[in-house]
Amino acid sequence: MIIVLRPDSTEEQIQHIEDRIRELGFKPHLSRGEIRTIIGVIGDENKLQAEPLSAIPGVEQVLAILKPFKLASREFHAHDTVVKVGNLRIGGGSLAMIAGPCAIESAEILDTIAGQVKKAGANLLRGGAFKPRTSPYSFQGLGEEGLKILRAVGDKHGMPVVTEIMDPRQVDLVARYADMFQIGARNMQNFDLLKEVGQARKPVLMKRGMSATVKDMLMSAEYILSEGNDQVVLCERGIRSFEDSTRNMLDLSAVPNVKGQSHLPIIVDPSHATGRPDLIPAMARAAVAAGADGVHVEVHSCPEKALSDGPQALLPHQYHALMVDLKRLADAVGKTIA
Amino acid sequence: MIIVLRPDSTEEQIQHIEDRIRELGFKPHLSRGEIRTIIGVIGDENKLQAEPLSAIPGVEQVLAILKPFKLASREFHAHDTVVKVGNLRIGGGSLAMIAGPCAIESAEILDTIAGQVKKAGANLLRGGAFKPRTSPYSFQGLGEEGLKILRAVGDKHGMPVVTEIMDPRQVDLVARYADMFQIGARNMQNFDLLKEVGQARKPVLMKRGMSATVKDMLMSAEYILSEGNDQVVLCERGIRSFEDSTRNMLDLSAVPNVKGQSHLPIIVDPSHATGRPDLIPAMARAAVAAGADGVHVEVHSCPEKALSDGPQALLPHQYHALMVDLKRLADAVGKTIA
Amino acid sequence: MIIVLRPDSTEEQIQHIEDRIRELGFKPHLSRGEIRTIIGVIGDENKLQAEPLSAIPGVEQVLAILKPFKLASREFHAHDTVVKVGNLRIGGGSLAMIAGPCAIESAEILDTIAGQVKKAGANLLRGGAFKPRTSPYSFQGLGEEGLKILRAVGDKHGMPVVTEIMDPRQVDLVARYADMFQIGARNMQNFDLLKEVGQARKPVLMKRGMSATVKDMLMSAEYILSEGNDQVVLCERGIRSFEDSTRNMLDLSAVPNVKGQSHLPIIVDPSHATGRPDLIPAMARAAVAAGADGVHVEVHSCPEKALSDGPQALLPHQYHALMVDLKRLADAVGKTIA
Amino acid sequence: MIIVLRPDSTEEQIQHIEDRIRELGFKPHLSRGEIRTIIGVIGDENKLQAEPLSAIPGVEQVLAILKPFKLASREFHAHDTVVKVGNLRIGGGSLAMIAGPCAIESAEILDTIAGQVKKAGANLLRGGAFKPRTSPYSFQGLGEEGLKILRAVGDKHGMPVVTEIMDPRQVDLVARYADMFQIGARNMQNFDLLKEVGQARKPVLMKRGMSATVKDMLMSAEYILSEGNDQVVLCERGIRSFEDSTRNMLDLSAVPNVKGQSHLPIIVDPSHATGRPDLIPAMARAAVAAGADGVHVEVHSCPEKALSDGPQALLPHQYHALMVDLKRLADAVGKTIA
Repeated sequence: MIIVLRPDSTEEQIQHIEDRIRELGFKPHLSRGEIRTIIGVIGDENKLQAEPLSAIPGVEQVLAILKPFKLASREFHAHDTVVKVGNLRIGGGSLAMIAGPCAIESAEILDTIAGQVKKAGANLLRGGAFKPRTSPYSFQGLGEEGLKILRAVGDKHGMPVVTEIMDPRQVDLVARYADMFQIGARNMQNFDLLKEVGQARKPVLMKRGMSATVKDMLMSAEYILSEGNDQVVLCERGIRSFEDSTRNMLDLSAVPNVKGQSHLPIIVDPSHATGRPDLIPAMARAAVAAGADGVHVEVHSCPEKALSDGPQALLPHQYHALMVDLKRLADAVGKTIA
Repeated sequence: MIIVLRPDSTEEQIQHIEDRIRELGFKPHLSRGEIRTIIGVIGDENKLQAEPLSAIPGVEQVLAILKPFKLASREFHAHDTVVKVGNLRIGGGSLAMIAGPCAIESAEILDTIAGQVKKAGANLLRGGAFKPRTSPYSFQGLGEEGLKILRAVGDKHGMPVVTEIMDPRQVDLVARYADMFQIGARNMQNFDLLKEVGQARKPVLMKRGMSATVKDMLMSAEYILSEGNDQVVLCERGIRSFEDSTRNMLDLSAVPNVKGQSHLPIIVDPSHATGRPDLIPAMARAAVAAGADGVHVEVHSCPEKALSDGPQALLPHQYHALMVDLKRLADAVGKTIA
Repeated sequence: MIIVLRPDSTEEQIQHIEDRIRELGFKPHLSRGEIRTIIGVIGDENKLQAEPLSAIPGVEQVLAILKPFKLASREFHAHDTVVKVGNLRIGGGSLAMIAGPCAIESAEILDTIAGQVKKAGANLLRGGAFKPRTSPYSFQGLGEEGLKILRAVGDKHGMPVVTEIMDPRQVDLVARYADMFQIGARNMQNFDLLKEVGQARKPVLMKRGMSATVKDMLMSAEYILSEGNDQVVLCERGIRSFEDSTRNMLDLSAVPNVKGQSHLPIIVDPSHATGRPDLIPAMARAAVAAGADGVHVEVHSCPEKALSDGPQALLPHQYHALMVDLKRLADAVGKTIA
Repeated sequence: MIIVLRPDSTEEQIQHIEDRIRELGFKPHLSRGEIRTIIGVIGDENKLQAEPLSAIPGVEQVLAILKPFKLASREFHAHDTVVKVGNLRIGGGSLAMIAGPCAIESAEILDTIAGQVKKAGANLLRGGAFKPRTSPYSFQGLGEEGLKILRAVGDKHGMPVVTEIMDPRQVDLVARYADMFQIGARNMQNFDLLKEVGQARKPVLMKRGMSATVKDMLMSAEYILSEGNDQVVLCERGIRSFEDSTRNMLDLSAVPNVKGQSHLPIIVDPSHATGRPDLIPAMARAAVAAGADGVHVEVHSCPEKALSDGPQALLPHQYHALMVDLKRLADAVGKTIA
């Protein structure tokens, strides 16, 4: 931690700051420049970060040197984490191809879609039973009935299943049916929910919040890891920006950015990021080329009758064509799709 | 709802779209332009919004005409809602002056601060017992012990109290101690939490999410209102932007923007918006001049030892000076501070 | 300047960095922490900022301590600059009330509007002769003909005039007619244009770019100041954000933010910031309460026939009502409108 | 164009709007819904867009149906435009590999770098002679001396050359030496400059502005095309966002987004977008997979001594390794690098 003093800071203030640092158990290290005086603080920065040093009179700014997350960092864990969901391995060169409808609508529809995406090469089935909708008047999901359908259809097609959890009270219920929890973008900083899935022993797919930096995303993963659950897969799904022709703005640079700092796998969701079927295939290809550990795509056999997010779903034959491309690209970058 | 067709849409597609609209119980109204054909859809737009019309082949875009919220709209309720918190009235010309520390740290500290802000003119005491912190290693709040302190200190100084609720399981607990729930920015789209406080019969202070549009904010209020709780006060507290010299970017235009569309009161929190004590007073003054129904400011008697957000707290004497300004400005714009 | 080394930096690399710093004429100051080693660099930071220190192997990041602008800073010039435009003083407690149509359309229309805004209390007339339009097919302004009209109408009503300049080749031409140059938001980083108006001896109204930070804005002002022209007034006019119900997002916190760092006056343009006549009055009031040195509002006597930006113009009677409010607020914050 | 009326619009207002539309030479088409009345306007929308219809009393909003650009659109020109720069073809399956230093510093340095990138497979040499720097105190480029060096080095290595132009007065000068003009991000809406290069008969590489939407970018291209120059290559180079760990946020979805709407080639610049050498290779790979028509990368043989943007340059051997990857990916997506 480096403390930069104001040009008008007094000797008394400097003394007070040094005292305060020692009081907190750290060692100050004064350095007087031509215009500014700075104080380096030697010691465990993680403890220091909780301290409001910038509120001390005479301080102009406090600069952190170290990353605020630990368990999620590559310094802590050098090798890529591989997360296992049923028989599927995510990370370490093995790609997750997650597909399915936005919401589970009926056993028949899900069964049809699952059969088609499985055939195309998907290896993890998705479908929402609890839906976070902007409007209270939109379809909110089938709840437990939906979870039962998801489990049955996944079993029938030999696919592990992932589904969103929105409420800490749903952990036991969802754990009974799903192989992997999904934390949605709107809940990336729902810390009680993160703690609760951190205590469960199921893998978690955690989506980036719409206004979260890469560091924020890793801090939220740290919440789950710090509760003892190290089976976390991150998901880039677009952030809010001024661009109004796409639903969100996909930040593919988050993929190598995360991989440099963290051992956790990261996949990409071009469906929510773009909201436009005409852009999804190109962004899925780019995700694989960028080094993502998987791609998450919404597929529906009849988008115009979908109860949620129909306009952004690929048709099964479009998904099939995309998977042909993705296999070729996975080859070109030395990855495999199980 | 207006459906704009693609230039290459076929007669067959147009026929299919018209059929689908009638099937949904609406009336299509075709209009052929020189380059584009459009279809107006006559009927209750709220029902239509759930339908994925843009997924129908031949459709280029779907334009909504009406606002997606109803109970929160001025069309539904023309007069300004006045929310009562204890004896305090918020809205309709009466300003809420909310002040207190970020987190409740001890009875002594809160008592000191409460005495000072009360004397300066604050009329609603704030303090966090459950703290949403970016890092799992930061102070998470005192929990129920904090709530007890808040209640006791509020009673001693004759101030109603507001505190944040983060988890739907905490509703009964928090309701026992607080006069008003606060929904934090990170939970503005935690829909299960919104439904839960919607079923409680306590006023709610709901903060704008960091990536929420004004419409998103009103949709989240609609969740609370649609559960039967109409005592909602909105709070503008800054959005995420590229500007890196302030914590967030305060959007004061949200104040008249909300007031034009909705009957709900809206206050402003310049503390979280700017994160800088040197900017808070000017932004608090601007908020009152912009027509806000109140101002929410964090105050701490010793910011350098605060357990949360110390660097952005005003000192009690700074708050006192600010309140002198705010009273003068409230006069100038015809509002009163009770 | 503080150089933070990578945890795996070698002694050889550290030696190389220290040598390089000395080679550049500075003094390195090594400080070994528990986890990271840092090097403080003692000397004139302005010179150092041009050096790509972060490209040296072993360096993790380079942290600047000082502000990158000098002539625009309060450290350099402690007292508020007062800019004179004709008889009008901007800054130091004296407010500029700039009003007029977006574009100059004809002598008659401008004369009508000028008479009305002058009567309402405006003290600086605006109007565009060269218009930066997003589309090449939109009205591009009357050019020199417009400048002549502006000069004549300004003289008739005894108002100094300000108009936009878009091209460095127009400096002499515009200088013949106008009392103040305006640099538009899209040209805030058109550095050749900034240099050219910096060499002229006329005051400049420089608008903030849509993606410019406050620091970027001050750096652009530095371009003008460094050419010898110290008569610069800044203008906050909104930045790009995800909010889609306003044209831009007005950042009123830029007002106290600039005033803390710089001696230059700063005014606010709520017309371009919001693009909505229903929000302009509230934001103009908030600007004065926030400490702005003036307000810039577009006014048109017949918005529905305006050749540019009609939908965001106030009607003359709306402007009149606003000025009544602004005078009361100016009083309340101790400012005067000449 | 669709005009949505306010719920309280009067018959008189509706009559006035219809009259106004006819006066402008268009045909109104009234449609009364249950809650809102709308008026479709039949006729050439391009002419209508200049009219401030939303300023007419009684109007709530005006919705455009058509795209505001014409010459840049795929409707106007269905096949991919192929831009020729010397012998290089950009577009139509042929990829531009643009490389070189940020600024031209000396003949020796440029010659070294050119030899290395040419050997790695680059086919277009870049280097800045006029540099747009945020600070007036940073290196501003060698000017004409730099242009001469660029031309000589390009000729020696048999590479066409591209360089930035910042001022409309430089067109003839730059045209004498360069094969392609570059318009930088900060000048994307410098309309006088766009018109000037539009009148020249040289290809133009136009970068996306930091706060420009995809539509804004295409409108700026339209300025160049409408002056008669149809040799325009677009360049995605990142937009401003709240993410603070990268210099800008690369929007790769702009690639398929542009290709769907326009016939113009679009390339990607991961150097300015990320500002981080550790992220550039992954983003260059993703660009090719996304369908970009080329990649623009800054390369320097000694980044720590570069006079501009050294920290974001790749080393020659890093560029060489990247080109090996890019050739493999180009193959995988059916493109060729000449």
